[in-house]
Amino acid sequence: MKDYEAFFSQSALQMRESAIRQMGTVLAQARNMISFAPGYPAEDQFPWQLLTDITRDLLDSRDGNVLQYGPTHGFRPLREATVALMQKRHITSTADNVLITNGSQQGLDLVGRVLLDPGDVVLMELPSYTGAISAFRNLGASMVGVRQQPDGIDLDHLDYTLTSLRRDGRRVKMLYLVPNFQNPTGLLLGLKKRVAVLEWAAKAGLLIVEDDPYRDLYFPDVAGEEDTRPIAADDHDGLVIYLSSFSKTIAPGFRMAWVNAPRAIGAKVELAKQASDLCTGNFDQRVVYEVCRRGLLETHLPKLRAHYQMKRDAMVDAIGVHLKGRVTWAPPSGGFFLWVALTGGLTSAEVMPLAREHGVIYVDGSAFFVDGSGKEYMRLSFSAPSPELIDEGVRRLAAAVDQAQAARGAAQSSAAATR
Amino acid sequence: MKDYEAFFSQSALQMRESAIRQMGTVLAQARNMISFAPGYPAEDQFPWQLLTDITRDLLDSRDGNVLQYGPTHGFRPLREATVALMQKRHITSTADNVLITNGSQQGLDLVGRVLLDPGDVVLMELPSYTGAISAFRNLGASMVGVRQQPDGIDLDHLDYTLTSLRRDGRRVKMLYLVPNFQNPTGLLLGLKKRVAVLEWAAKAGLLIVEDDPYRDLYFPDVAGEEDTRPIAADDHDGLVIYLSSFSKTIAPGFRMAWVNAPRAIGAKVELAKQASDLCTGNFDQRVVYEVCRRGLLETHLPKLRAHYQMKRDAMVDAIGVHLKGRVTWAPPSGGFFLWVALTGGLTSAEVMPLAREHGVIYVDGSAFFVDGSGKEYMRLSFSAPSPELIDEGVRRLAAAVDQAQAARGAAQSSAAATR
Repeated sequence: MKDYEAFFSQSALQMRESAIRQMGTVLAQARNMISFAPGYPAEDQFPWQLLTDITRDLLDSRDGNVLQYGPTHGFRPLREATVALMQKRHITSTADNVLITNGSQQGLDLVGRVLLDPGDVVLMELPSYTGAISAFRNLGASMVGVRQQPDGIDLDHLDYTLTSLRRDGRRVKMLYLVPNFQNPTGLLLGLKKRVAVLEWAAKAGLLIVEDDPYRDLYFPDVAGEEDTRPIAADDHDGLVIYLSSFSKTIAPGFRMAWVNAPRAIGAKVELAKQASDLCTGNFDQRVVYEVCRRGLLETHLPKLRAHYQMKRDAMVDAIGVHLKGRVTWAPPSGGFFLWVALTGGLTSAEVMPLAREHGVIYVDGSAFFVDGSGKEYMRLSFSAPSPELIDEGVRRLAAAVDQAQAARGAAQSSAAATR
Repeated sequence: MKDYEAFFSQSALQMRESAIRQMGTVLAQARNMISFAPGYPAEDQFPWQLLTDITRDLLDSRDGNVLQYGPTHGFRPLREATVALMQKRHITSTADNVLITNGSQQGLDLVGRVLLDPGDVVLMELPSYTGAISAFRNLGASMVGVRQQPDGIDLDHLDYTLTSLRRDGRRVKMLYLVPNFQNPTGLLLGLKKRVAVLEWAAKAGLLIVEDDPYRDLYFPDVAGEEDTRPIAADDHDGLVIYLSSFSKTIAPGFRMAWVNAPRAIGAKVELAKQASDLCTGNFDQRVVYEVCRRGLLETHLPKLRAHYQMKRDAMVDAIGVHLKGRVTWAPPSGGFFLWVALTGGLTSAEVMPLAREHGVIYVDGSAFFVDGSGKEYMRLSFSAPSPELIDEGVRRLAAAVDQAQAARGAAQSSAAATR
């Protein structure tokens, strides 16, 4: 038997590879490639020694629970630790509202499975995080884009979009948002807009899925904690499902994140997880819990902020030197990314193969648009490479952009000559 | 907003709690409860010292990849280690056919998502593993039961069932089987039947999902490697999707398992996993890989077999002492479970609340039947408790059975008296 098409589900037939993960594969295969593609945290910032101490202590305990199956909703002390973390973010919750997931990607998938039937509409920003797009697309959801402004989602366009969809009889279930240092744009949703969008959702009768992985990683020179108040902090009506993660602040290799949800929704998410993978690994949960309990984050986060701000500076400087005038970008207030638009009509897809030849990769910005637009954008991640590699990578990228521009010029001359 | 019913997906509305996980919750809440419920491996058999050495070495390496995001299909050396393990089981494969999953439960879910649309039929043994039932049910699949014989699935009934379903216009996609030490019965599928069922699937044009977590844990007094040859070993037509796990042989807390599939199916499973959780934790993958590389399994598996055989003896002896004449069971050839039928018309559901009062829990056997039958069965797991606790637990269970029988007798007398 060679042809399995007849066996595949509708979902399988429409699955597509993530543009980010695809670049990860390119990276793994190529030597000397500089990667601005996946949003990998800086490995030299991982708390290596603390993790060595913690894993030794956990295994020395000979506590069987450390290596055993655990409850589907997660290790209770870790759930309580996330409640304390959320408290610092002004979200009032309880451990019973929290479910530990294998990264926020699993949270997105499980929340989607619980809320979305094929054809249901999710409202997404233009642009929006590709992982959320993949998760909802695999469930057969229909994603409709809403325009963005410098302070985040365009509320007028949001309302207009909902009205149009409802007039057409579509079932709209939720709005997906990344209010803090959005992936890919690095933008902050303005504080007044946060309140307004919550009021809008209450009036519209929609849920909000608030994805908040970068909240702790603001750039102190342009933003502070006061800019990051989650929408969930002001949710008194059970409208917001809030997701956050330890992947960017401790390490992604533990795949440790959480979903905070109204109980009735959380109970369904738990059932979905039960059938998806029984439980998240107990060992990793206890490692991450111990990292919290031993107070790492308090001292570690200021260092991380300074580190990523320095990396942002390195990339902004490199663009100023090598790419001046050929791109524009909105300065990010936090997170891992610079969201760069090519000028002069060039597209990211034209530049990509040349960039790979020159030894640098990034993510094509169009992957973040559910409406097929955004072809001029590139997402450049500065989080992992050293400042030296950032400079060299942008230099290579500039060479690729110039080459693409020249090729386009030549094609136009030749078209003009043959006309 | 309090009522979320209008927001839930069709899948969420039909999700049900796993009977096994439910008992795990009961266990976590109760002191002095003896559990024969979840199939937890014995914690004193975990390779504690080796794991201490391995985690220290991994973290001392300061190799950033150890704690970073990784490829969706898994850490290549671990995939290669599973190929070597499968080779010992007479399955010829390559690392490119292997995908690492968060326990076999995730494998079942992902395979289901790739192959099953709502209404598609999966053929399941009566009884069959509840985790598979949950995963396929959440996808809206229709599960149809096939009778079992002492040497496994009844081939005549299998063929009859398929013919009936096809006559009714149903789309049958696959057969789910646990050929080695089936959960819950502990039965072995006879070797000739393995070949026959593969030939039948080829003729019928169906896929086989072969779930093989217990293969290494046979009881040497009644079974050997020669009895465990996987169906996948003889699959030359790409019909078999094979799942296995390190949860029972190393520790479940790492959630480490794999799916071996024809490339075209594996590629879809990879896309499904990408949107489900990006990747399995790199740290856990490297720990388990190191356990394999350092040769633990060669020396560890004979000890585990002897250990679980001893536990089986403890439970069989305890039943002989405390429950004689009130139950029957088929002696298992390996695995973690004794599959026990109550006699005298008693049901597992009648005994359960009394057993909890007496301080012992187990899993109601009816949870393993997709046709609602099997009410007289109890699945008793002997893997985790000590021989002393096994004896005490069976004593408590016998008291509960006697009490249930007496209650039934009293109810019948009283019914007779008032008639």
